[in-house]
Amino acid sequence: MRLAVIGVGLIGGSFALALKQAKAVHRVVGVGRNSANLEVALERGIIDATAPDATAAAKNADLVLVAAPVGQYPAIFSALKASSAIITDGGSTKRDVIAAARHALGPAIARFVPAHPIAGAEQSGAAAASAELFRGRRVVLTPLEENRDEALRVVEDAWRKCGAAVSRMDADEHDAVLSAVSHLPHLLAFALVHEVAGRENSAQLFSFAAGGFRDFTRIASSHPEMWRDICVANRDRLLDEVRRFSLKLEQVKALLDEPAQLEKLFAEARAARNRWIQSS
Amino acid sequence: MRLAVIGVGLIGGSFALALKQAKAVHRVVGVGRNSANLEVALERGIIDATAPDATAAAKNADLVLVAAPVGQYPAIFSALKASSAIITDGGSTKRDVIAAARHALGPAIARFVPAHPIAGAEQSGAAAASAELFRGRRVVLTPLEENRDEALRVVEDAWRKCGAAVSRMDADEHDAVLSAVSHLPHLLAFALVHEVAGRENSAQLFSFAAGGFRDFTRIASSHPEMWRDICVANRDRLLDEVRRFSLKLEQVKALLDEPAQLEKLFAEARAARNRWIQSS
Repeated sequence: MRLAVIGVGLIGGSFALALKQAKAVHRVVGVGRNSANLEVALERGIIDATAPDATAAAKNADLVLVAAPVGQYPAIFSALKASSAIITDGGSTKRDVIAAARHALGPAIARFVPAHPIAGAEQSGAAAASAELFRGRRVVLTPLEENRDEALRVVEDAWRKCGAAVSRMDADEHDAVLSAVSHLPHLLAFALVHEVAGRENSAQLFSFAAGGFRDFTRIASSHPEMWRDICVANRDRLLDEVRRFSLKLEQVKALLDEPAQLEKLFAEARAARNRWIQSS
Repeated sequence: MRLAVIGVGLIGGSFALALKQAKAVHRVVGVGRNSANLEVALERGIIDATAPDATAAAKNADLVLVAAPVGQYPAIFSALKASSAIITDGGSTKRDVIAAARHALGPAIARFVPAHPIAGAEQSGAAAASAELFRGRRVVLTPLEENRDEALRVVEDAWRKCGAAVSRMDADEHDAVLSAVSHLPHLLAFALVHEVAGRENSAQLFSFAAGGFRDFTRIASSHPEMWRDICVANRDRLLDEVRRFSLKLEQVKALLDEPAQLEKLFAEARAARNRWIQSS
């Protein structure tokens, strides 16, 4: 199988490495905006060749992974329209991705099976890619009614060969769930760091930050453009989440006057988190 | 040197273990409300004996560490009034601790040197204690004008022997700084987990939560009573921080309509965090 990867970053590079390791692909062509990053991908053996654009990369490919920030998807899908390859993607939002694909691909939408690998790291780029990134992680497919069986089979099979636990979900539901447990936390982490960094005594504040702050804000070291696109694409759901969170924060604030209730809330949160950690 | 530890949890137990390892203390007496936890402390060699209360524990001690949730400090300081031992503590807030000490100890306040070891973990109790907990971590002393030189010397020396980097700070400043980089993040993490846990589809939401959510919420597994007391004690500063954060969140929300500005904010946050990580 010949693979084309549009956007050879953490997700795209890891997909290529994992499928090479599984001997599921024998040749990978990569496309990207950053030539230094493509050099790294070539040197690391992630890709075997580069192509000037998505059209050229997909020409002789059996499978194409689109793994660029979701804001670039409309142009990429347009470039893939003439290809006969099966297409999947790694975008963290699905409604906007599907809308862009329907608009650009027309009937060729039958070959596109949307996917979201729920795996990541605050590091980005080909240098951070790993054949193990998806092992044991969830990959959510949000198949379309137009999808051909063969396309579904090939895409599901590819993600499985990366070691992922593949499941299916409706795109609406996907975007709602992910806005709560991924997009909102990213927004909160970026906001907190930006707030602290903007103060006159920010150097002093950072110098007293410890492990709790480090872990809480780890996701604020994530890729700004990628997260811009996710937040903008999932804006309505994210605004719902910010609203819910702000209400909860008001509730917690009010409980600073009711210590017993405050402790109860903290204990309930801890118990819920510990149950999740133990079960995952 | 004989040490008494009032509250043999993560902080108290680690202080005893570190000073034993440094051969700075030869006997440790522990006091606590949880007899199963004291059993663990005895079994692990953290303490050599238990005492029924702080008065009894301090009777033959040279140094006393108060390491209970700060809400218990008034009663503990009252129990320590008759002792002639030097006293330090491990509380995460300092203004309330000093006020309680002044009220309960009277002139004996000269023997109390407040301290805050900026080290922790979401695990609590003697089982989680480690001689290495404070190694390379900051311990902030907020000395009082009444402090005797000897008390200052003994307390500073003890924390140094735990491997900590000891510095001094005004109590007001301490509480302001820590509310921004520690107390607020804890409140936000508890709030987020409580919000998610309270929904009808919470099981589904948690099942799609990944590494970002896990790290962001790690501190929501912290000790509920300890954090209740910290939040209540530092209420005014914490409310300031919640207000600042809410304003920042409103700003970020508005930027969902201005992608370029949103990306700029994310990039600034990432750069600030990365600078901090690289320098720490």
